[in-house]
Amino acid sequence: MKITGLVVRNIRFPTSKTLAGSDAMHPCPDYSAAYVTLKTNSPSGLEGHGLTFTSGRGTEVVVAAIQAFKTIVVGRSLESIVGDFRSFWRSLASEGQLRWIGPEKGAIHLATSAIVNAVWDLYAKAENKPLWKLLVDMTPEQIVGLIDFRYITDVLTPEESIEILSRNRATRAERESELMRQGYPAYTTSAGWLGYSDEKLRTLCREGLSAGWTQFKLKVGAELDDDVRRAGIIREEIGWDRKLMMDANEVWDVNTAISWMKELTRFKPWWIEEPTSPDDVLGHAAIAPIAVATGEQCQNRVIFKQLFQLNAIRFCQIDACRLGGVNEVLAVLLMAAKFGVPVCPHAGGVGLCEYVQHFAMFDYISVSASLENRVVEYIDHLHEHFKHPVVMKHGRYMPPQAPGFSIEMRPQSLDEYEFPSGKAWQQWNRTVSAIP
Amino acid sequence: MKITGLVVRNIRFPTSKTLAGSDAMHPCPDYSAAYVTLKTNSPSGLEGHGLTFTSGRGTEVVVAAIQAFKTIVVGRSLESIVGDFRSFWRSLASEGQLRWIGPEKGAIHLATSAIVNAVWDLYAKAENKPLWKLLVDMTPEQIVGLIDFRYITDVLTPEESIEILSRNRATRAERESELMRQGYPAYTTSAGWLGYSDEKLRTLCREGLSAGWTQFKLKVGAELDDDVRRAGIIREEIGWDRKLMMDANEVWDVNTAISWMKELTRFKPWWIEEPTSPDDVLGHAAIAPIAVATGEQCQNRVIFKQLFQLNAIRFCQIDACRLGGVNEVLAVLLMAAKFGVPVCPHAGGVGLCEYVQHFAMFDYISVSASLENRVVEYIDHLHEHFKHPVVMKHGRYMPPQAPGFSIEMRPQSLDEYEFPSGKAWQQWNRTVSAIP
Repeated sequence: MKITGLVVRNIRFPTSKTLAGSDAMHPCPDYSAAYVTLKTNSPSGLEGHGLTFTSGRGTEVVVAAIQAFKTIVVGRSLESIVGDFRSFWRSLASEGQLRWIGPEKGAIHLATSAIVNAVWDLYAKAENKPLWKLLVDMTPEQIVGLIDFRYITDVLTPEESIEILSRNRATRAERESELMRQGYPAYTTSAGWLGYSDEKLRTLCREGLSAGWTQFKLKVGAELDDDVRRAGIIREEIGWDRKLMMDANEVWDVNTAISWMKELTRFKPWWIEEPTSPDDVLGHAAIAPIAVATGEQCQNRVIFKQLFQLNAIRFCQIDACRLGGVNEVLAVLLMAAKFGVPVCPHAGGVGLCEYVQHFAMFDYISVSASLENRVVEYIDHLHEHFKHPVVMKHGRYMPPQAPGFSIEMRPQSLDEYEFPSGKAWQQWNRTVSAIP
Repeated sequence: MKITGLVVRNIRFPTSKTLAGSDAMHPCPDYSAAYVTLKTNSPSGLEGHGLTFTSGRGTEVVVAAIQAFKTIVVGRSLESIVGDFRSFWRSLASEGQLRWIGPEKGAIHLATSAIVNAVWDLYAKAENKPLWKLLVDMTPEQIVGLIDFRYITDVLTPEESIEILSRNRATRAERESELMRQGYPAYTTSAGWLGYSDEKLRTLCREGLSAGWTQFKLKVGAELDDDVRRAGIIREEIGWDRKLMMDANEVWDVNTAISWMKELTRFKPWWIEEPTSPDDVLGHAAIAPIAVATGEQCQNRVIFKQLFQLNAIRFCQIDACRLGGVNEVLAVLLMAAKFGVPVCPHAGGVGLCEYVQHFAMFDYISVSASLENRVVEYIDHLHEHFKHPVVMKHGRYMPPQAPGFSIEMRPQSLDEYEFPSGKAWQQWNRTVSAIP
């Protein structure tokens, strides 16, 4: 099967209208995606779909970056790619001219992930398996063959990776059937967006509790007084046995993070997420006596490597498209396993729940073999645009069954929300964000 | 004076034809620029020019990123920007939606720098001074007002910055007149590009020596045997008293860098440049017993902060457009001064010599007050496209005299090399890079 075309579209949802997704650094995000479709010559019309999550303006920049990779992808056979996926990945991530505008970070790396994930969607569909199952059924050697170890061999070698992947292999069928029965634990961020009023926060907590949620996340970092009041409201509603996470979205300097969190520890946060710049591994290490979670803006495996080396994070929040797609995510899962750090994927964005559930399933079945301190983020909006949206039961992700990566959007959603030509954007004026 | 328009152009020079600029990671670069012109309502037709250096393909991605900032710039008065330049800088670097595709890294940060530097060019022209002189004539308080200290206050406060800037203030006129007489020391990278043959390397060394150069740089990292042979040739030609730098352009893992450099230390390199991923501050610290230089792909002040904290670099190679333009460069100059690390700007790219000479002059006159272990890179091609190209005397940069930032290109060069419409690109086929 040959890839005969690559189409990329700018899809934007006007979420800033409701302030869903608002936080201290992103007051008015429009959840968006640079959306890739790989066309093939398959008689059955098989296509690969992939997206990279964006925040509204700037999606067109990632679209341009995806276009720049077109010649590397179109014309390749699926077999030639997956036969040496490590080399294919590097041909994108380290393209001789394009790497200058990264390297392996920012718009060009977001573009890499959209393409890489679209290839994986195609691959999984061709194998007639959901992505997590495709990965679970691979040998340790096959998994290792997917990973570019450049820049991480000082902490993780291919040999160690095979050892990690072999460790719990004998019992993997048990964990697979356990997941099929009970699903993977999740927590909700849908209550605590910064732009919501106290009453809305309280109402959403109650709704969350009655829907079976046991872990809640609060956005913090704009005003300390507000944070104290809002944390109090959540604790009133959810009690002290359920878990409360806090998320500052990078708003603090290192010393501010330390002093601010001193004021908030009385609300017993399970973690503080993104306390400062995602680039500051030493800063995270300084804050780390408080339990730190980060990852959604950690640009690549090199940053995660250092966070692990310094014992700077208690929770590793991989993102399915900030990292360069499946292949790089696997590298981070293995490093996390080596350092004993639980992986709790980031999913606050359109399509991210659909994506990351596959990684959580694979991590449990084939890598960590543990659910301890592990939980996948869940947000409750925009799922209706996907052909195979996530299935939640009692606050847990149920393993996806449809072949592929669950990321294919419904054609009418793509048409309606394409920017700027879609109906949604013709009806609503583009919202101009307040500049923080 | 009001900024009434922003025009951005994709300018590409087909340097891959000659392999000038080739190295272990960038086998066939086309030196390029996303080129910004700010139009104004000034009666004299004053314009601000700025560019960000790119490597061929991908320039169009940065062009798209610059377009995304247009609404923040156009309509603003120069006075309102420079009156609170710190806030203007943050309004770009932390724009509520665009920051997602960075933040402060990759294409969007390269775009920030092109715009910020164009504003500085306009500002300097309006003040009728070359940029370095505009900065030198500011008070310490004015300089500090330009800098966004977000994420660096744990190592550098505004108060410390004022102290650093005040330290050598009394004697700055002496250093200024010294520079006017003797210029600022430079070294040349024009001999050692990886793609050059042994004979060409030898010839270029001899030409360099007779032109007065005393410091030479060799690209390494592809094949150890080649590096040994080529280093031997350079040492034969330049002797052992002159300085030889080596540059691996990020090709090594940490342990490879350490073992490879063990083989090359016998050629007495003054520094090893970019031994590994620019994101790996811990990796650089591990390599640091060898004198490490890096910076051209260090994405922002947060990475430099950590390199300083860990004593991981012996030389700080700021780049004028990898960092977010003048304002962020100033933050790094001050941190370098605090940690006693000499700044040796990166200039291997089109326009970078023109840019960074201003920083070197300012650093010497107003910040470090030292030339010890300080040297600015120089490459000898593409200067003819600039209205006010660098002036070199006896291998030293002479202080630019024309008002502005020296970055304005000749209109006929812009027309000829605009991609893909320019005459140069119609004549020559686009060169496809080998993928490393």
